[in-house]
Amino acid sequence: METKARVLIDCHDAKGLVYKISKIFYERDLNIDSNREFVDKEKERFFMRTVVSGTFEIDELDVALREVAPIDAHIRVIAPKDKKVVLLATKESHALGDILIRNAAGELGASIECVIANHETLRELVERFNIPFFHVPAEGLVREEHEARIMEKIDEHDFDFIVLAKYMRILTPSFVAAYPKQIINIHHSFLPAFIGANPYKQAYERGVKIIGATAHFVTNDLDEGPIIAQDVIPVNHRFDWKEMQRAGRDVEKVVLSRALNLVLHDRVFVNGNKTIIF
Amino acid sequence: METKARVLIDCHDAKGLVYKISKIFYERDLNIDSNREFVDKEKERFFMRTVVSGTFEIDELDVALREVAPIDAHIRVIAPKDKKVVLLATKESHALGDILIRNAAGELGASIECVIANHETLRELVERFNIPFFHVPAEGLVREEHEARIMEKIDEHDFDFIVLAKYMRILTPSFVAAYPKQIINIHHSFLPAFIGANPYKQAYERGVKIIGATAHFVTNDLDEGPIIAQDVIPVNHRFDWKEMQRAGRDVEKVVLSRALNLVLHDRVFVNGNKTIIF
Amino acid sequence: METKARVLIDCHDAKGLVYKISKIFYERDLNIDSNREFVDKEKERFFMRTVVSGTFEIDELDVALREVAPIDAHIRVIAPKDKKVVLLATKESHALGDILIRNAAGELGASIECVIANHETLRELVERFNIPFFHVPAEGLVREEHEARIMEKIDEHDFDFIVLAKYMRILTPSFVAAYPKQIINIHHSFLPAFIGANPYKQAYERGVKIIGATAHFVTNDLDEGPIIAQDVIPVNHRFDWKEMQRAGRDVEKVVLSRALNLVLHDRVFVNGNKTIIF
Amino acid sequence: METKARVLIDCHDAKGLVYKISKIFYERDLNIDSNREFVDKEKERFFMRTVVSGTFEIDELDVALREVAPIDAHIRVIAPKDKKVVLLATKESHALGDILIRNAAGELGASIECVIANHETLRELVERFNIPFFHVPAEGLVREEHEARIMEKIDEHDFDFIVLAKYMRILTPSFVAAYPKQIINIHHSFLPAFIGANPYKQAYERGVKIIGATAHFVTNDLDEGPIIAQDVIPVNHRFDWKEMQRAGRDVEKVVLSRALNLVLHDRVFVNGNKTIIF
Repeated sequence: METKARVLIDCHDAKGLVYKISKIFYERDLNIDSNREFVDKEKERFFMRTVVSGTFEIDELDVALREVAPIDAHIRVIAPKDKKVVLLATKESHALGDILIRNAAGELGASIECVIANHETLRELVERFNIPFFHVPAEGLVREEHEARIMEKIDEHDFDFIVLAKYMRILTPSFVAAYPKQIINIHHSFLPAFIGANPYKQAYERGVKIIGATAHFVTNDLDEGPIIAQDVIPVNHRFDWKEMQRAGRDVEKVVLSRALNLVLHDRVFVNGNKTIIF
Repeated sequence: METKARVLIDCHDAKGLVYKISKIFYERDLNIDSNREFVDKEKERFFMRTVVSGTFEIDELDVALREVAPIDAHIRVIAPKDKKVVLLATKESHALGDILIRNAAGELGASIECVIANHETLRELVERFNIPFFHVPAEGLVREEHEARIMEKIDEHDFDFIVLAKYMRILTPSFVAAYPKQIINIHHSFLPAFIGANPYKQAYERGVKIIGATAHFVTNDLDEGPIIAQDVIPVNHRFDWKEMQRAGRDVEKVVLSRALNLVLHDRVFVNGNKTIIF
Repeated sequence: METKARVLIDCHDAKGLVYKISKIFYERDLNIDSNREFVDKEKERFFMRTVVSGTFEIDELDVALREVAPIDAHIRVIAPKDKKVVLLATKESHALGDILIRNAAGELGASIECVIANHETLRELVERFNIPFFHVPAEGLVREEHEARIMEKIDEHDFDFIVLAKYMRILTPSFVAAYPKQIINIHHSFLPAFIGANPYKQAYERGVKIIGATAHFVTNDLDEGPIIAQDVIPVNHRFDWKEMQRAGRDVEKVVLSRALNLVLHDRVFVNGNKTIIF
Repeated sequence: METKARVLIDCHDAKGLVYKISKIFYERDLNIDSNREFVDKEKERFFMRTVVSGTFEIDELDVALREVAPIDAHIRVIAPKDKKVVLLATKESHALGDILIRNAAGELGASIECVIANHETLRELVERFNIPFFHVPAEGLVREEHEARIMEKIDEHDFDFIVLAKYMRILTPSFVAAYPKQIINIHHSFLPAFIGANPYKQAYERGVKIIGATAHFVTNDLDEGPIIAQDVIPVNHRFDWKEMQRAGRDVEKVVLSRALNLVLHDRVFVNGNKTIIF
C-alpha cells in the first residue's frame, strides 16, 4: 500500500547530510515527489522539506532519519492531512469571511474548530457556516482575566494553529508563550512600517504611496515575530485613511490566506526571527 | 436640505466646457467635493465626473447642464445610492463568495437581487446568506433556449448590472445585445493573453512567469470588451496548471471586486473599447 | 503664435475656484490640454495643475489668476522647458548611471549641470558623458566644513533641483534649509521601514519578504520628507543582505527616475509632509 | 587548493538520482554550497543545480557524474567565471545603456565582446565605454544578406550568448538555428499578449490597465521562445501609446538585466518551451 509523507528536517549543517538522508530514501525505494533544501550559512543551519511516497512505515522512517541526523536535529515525518485551527476575531469580517468561504469550498486544507471573538458582531456570519462561535467579552475584565477565558475556550479544542483573523487585542507574553510557533497573525501594514495601533492612519499621515499587509507568527515582541508572507498595493493622495483601510482589506485577507496555505502544508520553517518558505 | 449628486458627462470636446459647467455649479452655490476630467485627444471626447453638494434639485441641475453641453452629450446627474445587481455563476465559489461576504458586511455598495447558476453547486452557499438562488440547468437545451430561460429569470428582477462571477458559459450576441454596458465579467487571465477556454492551462503550456485576471464589460467579441481592472501575480516552474488556477483565484476575486466597486460608484466611463476610470 | 503653459495653483479651498479659474482660461480662448485638481478636505487646500495652450502672455495670465485666487495662493504659470539639476553621488553608479543614460538619450527632461561626489570613483563614468565632475573629499573635515565646500560648488551652478543619486552622507539642517523643496533623495528602503543606515541589512535581519525604495524630498527629519514615489520587489530567505542590495538597486534607480520625471514636469505638489502627484 | 563548481544536470527522472549524485559529492568530501532540484512530473525530467566546493578536479567529477546519470543526461560541471556576450541593438539606448552601466561597475557578470547594430545611432554611447561597435546597415539588402553580414561579425567573436538589447528586426529561422539556446531577447510586451510589431500601440488600442516586458530565448516561432523573466507596471487611460512606451522602457531594461543575471549564472534550464529557474 502506497504511503506518502512530508519529511521536515531542521538541524545544524554538516557535510554529507543530503547523501545520508537520500540514502535512507533510496534504501526504502521511495519516490521523491518534491525536495527543497536551504542552508543558512550565517547560522550554519540546514533545512529540508521532502515529500516521499512508497511502501514504508512513517515511524520507521522517522527513526532511521534520526540516526543519521545531527544530535540537535528537529525531524518530523508527517502524513499529509488537514490541520486543525482555532480562529480569533473581533468585528471585521473580511479575513474571517475569506477563510470561511475557502473552507466551505474544501480549499482551506484545514478544519475550523471554532471561532472565538471578543464581540458578538461576527456570530451571524460564522453560524451561517455551521461553525461554533464563542463570544468572550472583554468588558469589565483586566487583560489577564479576559485572556484566561479565551485560553480556556481555546484549550477545549484540539488544534494545530491559532489564527488571529483581525483579532484586535494585544496578547500578553504569557498567552503567547503558551502557544509557541502556533499563533499566526495578520497585521494591517507592511511591517516593520507602522507597528502598533491604526497603521492605516499612520500610513495616511506619513503620505506613503504603497500600503501592505503582513502575516507573521506571534512572539512576545509586538508585531516583531517571524514574517510568513507580505504583499502591497499602491495608493495615492486621493486615499484618506478610511479608503486605505478599505483597499487594504483585500491585501490583508489574501496575505493571511497565502500564509495559512503555506503553514497548513508544512511549508514554513521558523529560523530564529525569520522564516524559510518552501 | 443638503443634496449630493454625481455629475457624469461624456461628450465631444469643446472649448469652454469646464467653464460653462463650473459656472452652473457656481451659480447654484454648490460645493465641488471631487472633480475628475479627461480629454481623449484622439477621439476629441471629454469626460467628467464631479461630486457636488448643496441645496439644489437634481432634475433642474440636469436640465441646466444639458443646455450648455454639446448636442451629443451623455449627461447623468445621479444621487449616490446602492445599485442593484444580478449575479450569474456556475460552480466556483471564490468570486461569488467574496461578493457575498462584502455584501453581508455592508461593504459592497449594492444590493444583490439574486444569484442564477447553471448548476446546483452554489445553492447552499448563497442561501446561507438569504439571497435568492435560481438553478437554470443547461442540460438538454440548445444555447439559445438556455439563455432565454436565464434572461427570463434576470428580467424578473430590477437591476443595474449583471455580474458574471465565474459564469463559465459563452454568451450569445443576442444576450449581450440585450444588456449593453451592463454585463461585467471576470476573465481568468491577463487579457488579451489567453483568450478563450482554460487560460490557466494555456498559461502553464506557455510557461509564463506571471498570471493575472481581467474584469471587463462583455461585448459580442469574446473576451474583447472594455477592460475595467486587471492584476497579476508571479508564478514559477513549480506551478502546474491546477496550482496556477488555485493561486489565480485570489487575483480573480480581488480584481472583480475592485471593478465592481468602481462601476457601482459610477467611476467608469466606456470610451469605445476602452474605459476611463475616475 | 501658440503658447503653452503649465498653470500650478496651490491655495486655501474656496467655493467657485474652478469657475473663476476656468473663466480666465475661457476669456482668453485657451485650450485646456489637461487638467487635474485635488482638494485636501482635512487641510481645506486646493491643488490644480492645468496645461493650457493658445495665444496669450504668461505674465498677463499669471496676474489675472492672482486676482481671483485666495490671498494665500501659490500660483505658478510656467512655460514647459527643461529644468536644471545638480547631482550628488558617492560611489555607486546605478542611480547616477541611469540618469546619465536617460540624459544622453534626451529622455531626462533636464540638463545636468554637474555631478559632485565625495569620492573619485564615479569620475570616469561621468566624464564619459562630458558632464563636469567635482570631487569634494570629506576626509579630515568636520561635516560643516565639507558641506560648506559642497554648497560652494553647488552654488556656482544654476539649478532647479539637487538630486541625491545615492549620496551616502547625512545632510545637516542648515544644508537642507538652504534648498527647501529642492533636494530629492532616493532612500534604499520602503520608508518608513528601515530608516537610517544600511536598510538592506536591517531588512535581512528582520526577515521581510518584500524590499523597496523611496524617492522623497529631503527635510530636516532624516528620511522623513514628503514621499514622491515608492516601489517594491519580492525577496525570500535565499537572499542575504548583499543580494537584497543587488536586487534593490534596480528598484532604487527606477523609483528615482520616476520621481525625477514627475518633479521635472511640475507634477508634484508638496502638501505639508505629503505630496500630491498629478 | 579549494575549487568551486556549478553542477548542472538535466535528465530523465529516475529513483535514486539524488542519492547517487550526493554520494559522489560525499565521497569527494565536497561542500554543497547550494542545491536546487525540480522534477517535471509531466515530462518525467529531473533538473538539478548544485554549487559544490572542495578539493577536486572538475573533469573527474564530470566523469563520475556521467557514470551514475541516465544515458540521456545533459551534465555540465562548470567553474564559475564570466560569460562572454555579443549585443545586438538598433536605436534605443535604455536596455543597452543599462547593460553598459552594469558592466562598467563590474556588476554584469559577463564581458561584452562587442555591440552590433543596424543603425549608427548608438555608436557614441557604446564607444564612450570603450566597447567595439559595429554598424551593419540593412539598407538595400535582403534580409538574408543582412543577417549573413551580422553573423559574420558575430562569428569573429568568442561568445556564450547573443543578447538582443532592443534589436528591432525579425530573425530568420536559419539565423536562430545557428545559435540554439544562445539568443536572448527582450520583448516589449507581457507575452503572449501583443506578439509582433508595436506592442505598446496594440496595448493602447486594447485599453489594458497593465503593460509589461518579457525576456525569452529566441526560437523560430516569433516571440514564442522559452520565457526567462517577465514584469509589469500599471497604466491608465491617461497614457497614450508613446507614454506607455516611455514607461515600459524601465520594465524592459530591468527584465532583460534580471534575465541576463540568471542566464549568466547558469540558473536557467530550458525545458521544452519553458524554463526552470533556480
